[in-house]
Amino acid sequence: MLDKFHDECGVVGVYGHADAANLVYLGLYALQHRGQESAGIAASNDGKMHLEVGMGLVADVFSGARLKKLPGSLAIGHNRYSTTGVSRLKNAQPCLIEYAGGTMAMGHNGNLVNAPGIRKELGEAGAIFQSTNDSEVIVHLMAQSRRNSFIDRAVAALSQVKGAYSIVLMSENELIAARDPNGFRPLCLGKVDGGYIVASESCVMNLVEAEYIRELEPGELLLINKYGMKSFFPFPKSPTTQCVFEHIYFSRPDSHLFGQPVYSARKHMGRALARDTPVDADVVVPVPDSGVISAMGYSEESGIPFQMGLIRNHYVGRTFIEPQSQIRNFGVKIKLNAVESVIRGKRVIIIDDSIVRGTTSKKIVKMLREVGAKEIHVRISSPPTTHSCFYGIDTPTKGELIASNMNLEQTREYLGADSLHYLDLEKMLDVFGDQRGNFCSACFNGCYPIEVEDPNEGSPQLDLFE
Amino acid sequence: MLDKFHDECGVVGVYGHADAANLVYLGLYALQHRGQESAGIAASNDGKMHLEVGMGLVADVFSGARLKKLPGSLAIGHNRYSTTGVSRLKNAQPCLIEYAGGTMAMGHNGNLVNAPGIRKELGEAGAIFQSTNDSEVIVHLMAQSRRNSFIDRAVAALSQVKGAYSIVLMSENELIAARDPNGFRPLCLGKVDGGYIVASESCVMNLVEAEYIRELEPGELLLINKYGMKSFFPFPKSPTTQCVFEHIYFSRPDSHLFGQPVYSARKHMGRALARDTPVDADVVVPVPDSGVISAMGYSEESGIPFQMGLIRNHYVGRTFIEPQSQIRNFGVKIKLNAVESVIRGKRVIIIDDSIVRGTTSKKIVKMLREVGAKEIHVRISSPPTTHSCFYGIDTPTKGELIASNMNLEQTREYLGADSLHYLDLEKMLDVFGDQRGNFCSACFNGCYPIEVEDPNEGSPQLDLFE
Amino acid sequence: MLDKFHDECGVVGVYGHADAANLVYLGLYALQHRGQESAGIAASNDGKMHLEVGMGLVADVFSGARLKKLPGSLAIGHNRYSTTGVSRLKNAQPCLIEYAGGTMAMGHNGNLVNAPGIRKELGEAGAIFQSTNDSEVIVHLMAQSRRNSFIDRAVAALSQVKGAYSIVLMSENELIAARDPNGFRPLCLGKVDGGYIVASESCVMNLVEAEYIRELEPGELLLINKYGMKSFFPFPKSPTTQCVFEHIYFSRPDSHLFGQPVYSARKHMGRALARDTPVDADVVVPVPDSGVISAMGYSEESGIPFQMGLIRNHYVGRTFIEPQSQIRNFGVKIKLNAVESVIRGKRVIIIDDSIVRGTTSKKIVKMLREVGAKEIHVRISSPPTTHSCFYGIDTPTKGELIASNMNLEQTREYLGADSLHYLDLEKMLDVFGDQRGNFCSACFNGCYPIEVEDPNEGSPQLDLFE
Amino acid sequence: MLDKFHDECGVVGVYGHADAANLVYLGLYALQHRGQESAGIAASNDGKMHLEVGMGLVADVFSGARLKKLPGSLAIGHNRYSTTGVSRLKNAQPCLIEYAGGTMAMGHNGNLVNAPGIRKELGEAGAIFQSTNDSEVIVHLMAQSRRNSFIDRAVAALSQVKGAYSIVLMSENELIAARDPNGFRPLCLGKVDGGYIVASESCVMNLVEAEYIRELEPGELLLINKYGMKSFFPFPKSPTTQCVFEHIYFSRPDSHLFGQPVYSARKHMGRALARDTPVDADVVVPVPDSGVISAMGYSEESGIPFQMGLIRNHYVGRTFIEPQSQIRNFGVKIKLNAVESVIRGKRVIIIDDSIVRGTTSKKIVKMLREVGAKEIHVRISSPPTTHSCFYGIDTPTKGELIASNMNLEQTREYLGADSLHYLDLEKMLDVFGDQRGNFCSACFNGCYPIEVEDPNEGSPQLDLFE
Repeated sequence: MLDKFHDECGVVGVYGHADAANLVYLGLYALQHRGQESAGIAASNDGKMHLEVGMGLVADVFSGARLKKLPGSLAIGHNRYSTTGVSRLKNAQPCLIEYAGGTMAMGHNGNLVNAPGIRKELGEAGAIFQSTNDSEVIVHLMAQSRRNSFIDRAVAALSQVKGAYSIVLMSENELIAARDPNGFRPLCLGKVDGGYIVASESCVMNLVEAEYIRELEPGELLLINKYGMKSFFPFPKSPTTQCVFEHIYFSRPDSHLFGQPVYSARKHMGRALARDTPVDADVVVPVPDSGVISAMGYSEESGIPFQMGLIRNHYVGRTFIEPQSQIRNFGVKIKLNAVESVIRGKRVIIIDDSIVRGTTSKKIVKMLREVGAKEIHVRISSPPTTHSCFYGIDTPTKGELIASNMNLEQTREYLGADSLHYLDLEKMLDVFGDQRGNFCSACFNGCYPIEVEDPNEGSPQLDLFE
Repeated sequence: MLDKFHDECGVVGVYGHADAANLVYLGLYALQHRGQESAGIAASNDGKMHLEVGMGLVADVFSGARLKKLPGSLAIGHNRYSTTGVSRLKNAQPCLIEYAGGTMAMGHNGNLVNAPGIRKELGEAGAIFQSTNDSEVIVHLMAQSRRNSFIDRAVAALSQVKGAYSIVLMSENELIAARDPNGFRPLCLGKVDGGYIVASESCVMNLVEAEYIRELEPGELLLINKYGMKSFFPFPKSPTTQCVFEHIYFSRPDSHLFGQPVYSARKHMGRALARDTPVDADVVVPVPDSGVISAMGYSEESGIPFQMGLIRNHYVGRTFIEPQSQIRNFGVKIKLNAVESVIRGKRVIIIDDSIVRGTTSKKIVKMLREVGAKEIHVRISSPPTTHSCFYGIDTPTKGELIASNMNLEQTREYLGADSLHYLDLEKMLDVFGDQRGNFCSACFNGCYPIEVEDPNEGSPQLDLFE
Repeated sequence: MLDKFHDECGVVGVYGHADAANLVYLGLYALQHRGQESAGIAASNDGKMHLEVGMGLVADVFSGARLKKLPGSLAIGHNRYSTTGVSRLKNAQPCLIEYAGGTMAMGHNGNLVNAPGIRKELGEAGAIFQSTNDSEVIVHLMAQSRRNSFIDRAVAALSQVKGAYSIVLMSENELIAARDPNGFRPLCLGKVDGGYIVASESCVMNLVEAEYIRELEPGELLLINKYGMKSFFPFPKSPTTQCVFEHIYFSRPDSHLFGQPVYSARKHMGRALARDTPVDADVVVPVPDSGVISAMGYSEESGIPFQMGLIRNHYVGRTFIEPQSQIRNFGVKIKLNAVESVIRGKRVIIIDDSIVRGTTSKKIVKMLREVGAKEIHVRISSPPTTHSCFYGIDTPTKGELIASNMNLEQTREYLGADSLHYLDLEKMLDVFGDQRGNFCSACFNGCYPIEVEDPNEGSPQLDLFE
Repeated sequence: MLDKFHDECGVVGVYGHADAANLVYLGLYALQHRGQESAGIAASNDGKMHLEVGMGLVADVFSGARLKKLPGSLAIGHNRYSTTGVSRLKNAQPCLIEYAGGTMAMGHNGNLVNAPGIRKELGEAGAIFQSTNDSEVIVHLMAQSRRNSFIDRAVAALSQVKGAYSIVLMSENELIAARDPNGFRPLCLGKVDGGYIVASESCVMNLVEAEYIRELEPGELLLINKYGMKSFFPFPKSPTTQCVFEHIYFSRPDSHLFGQPVYSARKHMGRALARDTPVDADVVVPVPDSGVISAMGYSEESGIPFQMGLIRNHYVGRTFIEPQSQIRNFGVKIKLNAVESVIRGKRVIIIDDSIVRGTTSKKIVKMLREVGAKEIHVRISSPPTTHSCFYGIDTPTKGELIASNMNLEQTREYLGADSLHYLDLEKMLDVFGDQRGNFCSACFNGCYPIEVEDPNEGSPQLDLFE
């Protein structure tokens, strides 16, 4: 899948390290795949908090000089995803606010399904909003809490919100990391030079040379302050419904997530796919980068040789200028190119992790035909994506999802492939063994673990103005 | 006076003009002297509001492309003053917020003396703040009002604040301009191509070729919407205490303000100064640009020739890099240079509008000595500045005001001048004839027309965190 | 005159000062009025030369970090003028080149009338050109010289060019400053902390606190190296024809030039103008800033009060965005505003230094009429500009010069003035006493001291390609 | 190999296409891997040439607005490589110069071994140089030619230079593409919408949807103008010595080069390596991206499973800020991370295309040890790099090449690997079958096909001044 949809961000928090902002910066670097729209870091030093945010990649937003503006041993950071719409600096996180209890900053990965309702109530009581982020309701609820301690305010606020959140929160001298009771999004904990670090994915621990400790549990709030680290489980027990798409697509293959390595989950999906829908062919070719690991699994299981028949240009940036006088659309070509020597005359199995709108897959099939593929068999290492996500993934509306509007044969014909198969949901979940029941599969079967008002109407994400 | 202190901003609002944002841009251009730190414009089009703000001069912040992002026939704009501290984009105005009643934007010139208290109350009730601007309390109070209409919310909010404000406020389709009951800061109204324009100073009307109508009265709220223009006077009558420093220094000499031309006020101050403290000398030399008009008045009254014995370099920007290996401080030299052919061997009367810390004046005296002035007589066209302002001017604390810490003779000695005289307060007010009672002179005599808690302690301006 | 035409640059050179580049930077700051298009500095350290150039004002081009890239005790700098056409970084100076003799850099103020011919010859011999600057021929000629020493190469090259040049040249360890035999453009010498500084105007000496020594003489080459300073006069004697427009308009009033203070020259021109063309009126108003000093002289001589009836907005930048939906042209309004209280009902004498195309003057007259001037008498402190300059001033072609196309009465009518008078050439030159013969007046009388091929055809400045 | 050294650029030229500059832009996009330091395009329209160059990636240098400044149906472009030293805009290409014959522009990939000598001669004859590029001598020689036509001048100039060049040259209305007689660097030709395109690699043809025609032959000059396309072979026949490193590392795997697909060459090198130096192990892991294809070949031949045990972070930019208070060096970690689930407890064969200094390989071995590799066998799909390149690749000096200073066992010990083997030179060349004699292997065996003065002294690339 080529940037067809995106996760809602990566978060990092560091407590008790002289280089807190710098470690957060490194962490955001490692989590860049989770969001390329904006990056930001808040740090606290001697009771004073500083915030630096900017549009773009972490490496573009932060210079050495800018990092120096973020002294202190406590810091949080956030990468925000890229939408096709207007990028707005005001929506960049962390947000930093003043309230009666002092100053606080927050970074949020996820989506709160009852944010519009809370926002409406808050608004009726006179609250004003600076962003269109659903996350902003959390800091409002914290500010309105009559509780005194930072952790109590956090508990009070998070008790009122529903949906998906992996969150980092900081006051002048405390760090809170929290995962929603369903555990939709990942969040893990490590130890570095006597300090603590929390981050969306474990690959952060590798980069900063932290010792990986564990994932936060669903519903856990972790408070880190001068007295040490303390866990809280203040919410009623919920079923665990971790996002299976983190394993399918979002997370880095070198991360360890929801109890198992992403790499092996993907490899097993590829193997299961080979068993599920075998086909006689000459080469197995991944759509890079997301299809690579599952294609390797498919190749291993099927015995059909694995080939990098599509080459990805990693220098592709945000903007790309199409020629003007010609009616052409380079689209996927700027990112991918087929290797003719690998494809010509071959029966090709092309492996991707998912199909969203189908437009990119169609172009890939066409590209392969142009360089002489004899047969093209599209294999997808996950089930058809038929429903929008409301828990933090920026999927298109149901009407735009090809699998929601066409059956398998119609889709195959639309793509121009000789055959098309998706991995069966149950077989995909088999990959997770006795953990199979702990995943959300709403985007595949519409079983939303947390109720959403009118889930298939309108845009799933909050977008109030502009 | 060379940028020794600064007004808190200029504001502009336009209603009912196809080029609203562009006229606001021109207005900000004409008001650039009131604030060089940041510039911003909010515009409303078909119920959608857009905001563009940036650090720096109007001409640097706004390109043609950026102005095009601000369509609509309703717009407001704001120039923010420059502090010596950190410039913060988050404090730039206009602010644009979401609340229960929709979207609104506001630009504020002035300072609210009870903002800290209101902020504390709002905070205790759970409000969160994004900036350290005192102005932010106004939009909070408007959002919390139970009233429905935009004007009623504005009245409700402004009834609770005390201090100085000339304000422009816009909803999706209405413009409100308001001046506090004391009328500290200026605000005037014009008509342009069938639409309306409000602005801090009348020079805006000249530039945009608007017909000048009148100044807003102290305590007046002007509502402009599709039904036309309507005035409200919802507040109890207060004494009028307009800022006399607008005439002395801040406003452009081509503006008409508080009922009279700035140019003639300054000219008369210079004449009064000549009568008040005559001295036998060869030339009258202004400190450009602020001392030019009063120096002309002094020259006319005294008969001593006026000469531009100090030349100002108008290309001086924000940053200036001092040589490193030499212990020198170019300071005022980079801005001013003495004309030796005018000064050498002369008894010089040097005219400035005011002295704040005295450091610049001292350097000017030294510079004149170096090119051979025989005598140097410093004459100031206003009384000694002994008290801080709490109504919108960013004066230093009392401890930093030279006139608050040294008597006349000590100051003269510090400056190195042969003589020093200030214009007497009563004689200065004589310039305004029967309007003499309608001015605030707190910075000269400490008689604060609106009570300030502990006025001479700490920083007069709100500065909660960086 | 409001930026109607421009000089070709300012130059600075420093030898033997640890802060050489920084002093050059300060010098360019002081010479900013001579060119705002680009700024550049070359510095030499231990035989290595570095160059930094950029488009824009000195303060925008150079940061502290950028200045640090220019170590060494030898440096030259250059401000380039702004054209209405495309600004080109490649034309920015100093130029730095490699040649058989090593590395050299050059900054040039002036215009070489035989540059096209030399360029053609050089091209035919195989030379390639990187810029469209006429100055580039000088470094080519130096490189082609068979002489060994830097000074000999400079003499050889300058012997071949004709026209106007005040030039700074540096090798890895020598500085050369030179003025053409006619002495068209200024160049002066100072001493600072044991090192030497040369600069276009003496105001530079004031800013860097250098001791002013003298002007370079026409035809003088000054070599400064480890052996000290040495003068050369290698060219045949020419009549001295210094640019009288430096006194009329270009140079700063606080500079001392061609043997006398600019300030007093302008003052005397104003006085002469008052004597030459008296008129009964109420106020004398300068077009700021260039008309200020002469207006003061006019006022003193005539006894008619001097008033700043036009206020200049000094924040005006390069770009200014006109409203779109209205057919208007703000033109001069963005820079100047009339002070109604000064003008209304008055007979106004408006003083400017020159009229080029007449369009700006026409707008000023209109602006004064609009605020109620009863009579408007335009007085120009120099003769009618009837001919283009070919010695370093970017004047329009003859066809665009109003005085070349209309007689006095026609011009008056075009401007809409009640009367119009220019200062007579002879009377203007009287200001310079026995130096009156040492000036070029070609722009007033067409007597070109150095022959120009077809002077009134085409663009006077070299502009080969874009 | 992780960016350990770099090719000297990519070039593109387009003739006869309304979107010439835009196609060149796309071509540079596809050739971004050949140079990331600077990008530039020159275009000719109606006899006027425009040039736009900038530092950075193609996508950052060119906006839509900037491309619009490059009208015309003839254009050339250039990507320049990134050095560790100072990046210099003046060295960016294409260079555009004026000479007696008009205007011309040039982009060059390669390195001229006799450039210093020619430069010296030119300098002695008076030539001046603007850049430190060896390429600049070509335009000088063309300008000095007494021939009249553009092609004749090109022939005259190229007859005098020795070394490696694939070059695009344009006059106002002609395009010349040329490859040196040895054919060191690649250059190919295509047809697009009736126009022609030349480019360093064939992947450009795929992206712009051009029809691939052929490679230029060594020693071929291709002239394209209004009369069509014409080939010239003006130089004495030389042995063909194409750069084998283009196949090993530089070119994209989806390009077709020197008669065969890069993808299959690399695959065969991997297979040969497996045969050459078999080892008993559990997994074959490539150093991404350059080792991926050869690792696949190794896996196929050896039957040992291929795994992506190292994950590359493709968001890594130019700048990366290390933490300050810790003595750490993240180095390779920021780019690569090991997948613990793939590596732990395994005997790992790690495949890379080459080793230059050895520092990166050492870090990779260490990283694999840390995640539990039981054995680490380093296999390199090319011979030891023992000599510097003088034909266009920016290799370090001989003293910095590990294989030039350590024997195999010493290198193995330095890397910390359990075993180390390189592919034998003859066996590597076997991959090219009967073309095996047509390659330069100087970096492996020191047999330089074109004599270089004192090849192992000093920097191999021209670097006259900074």
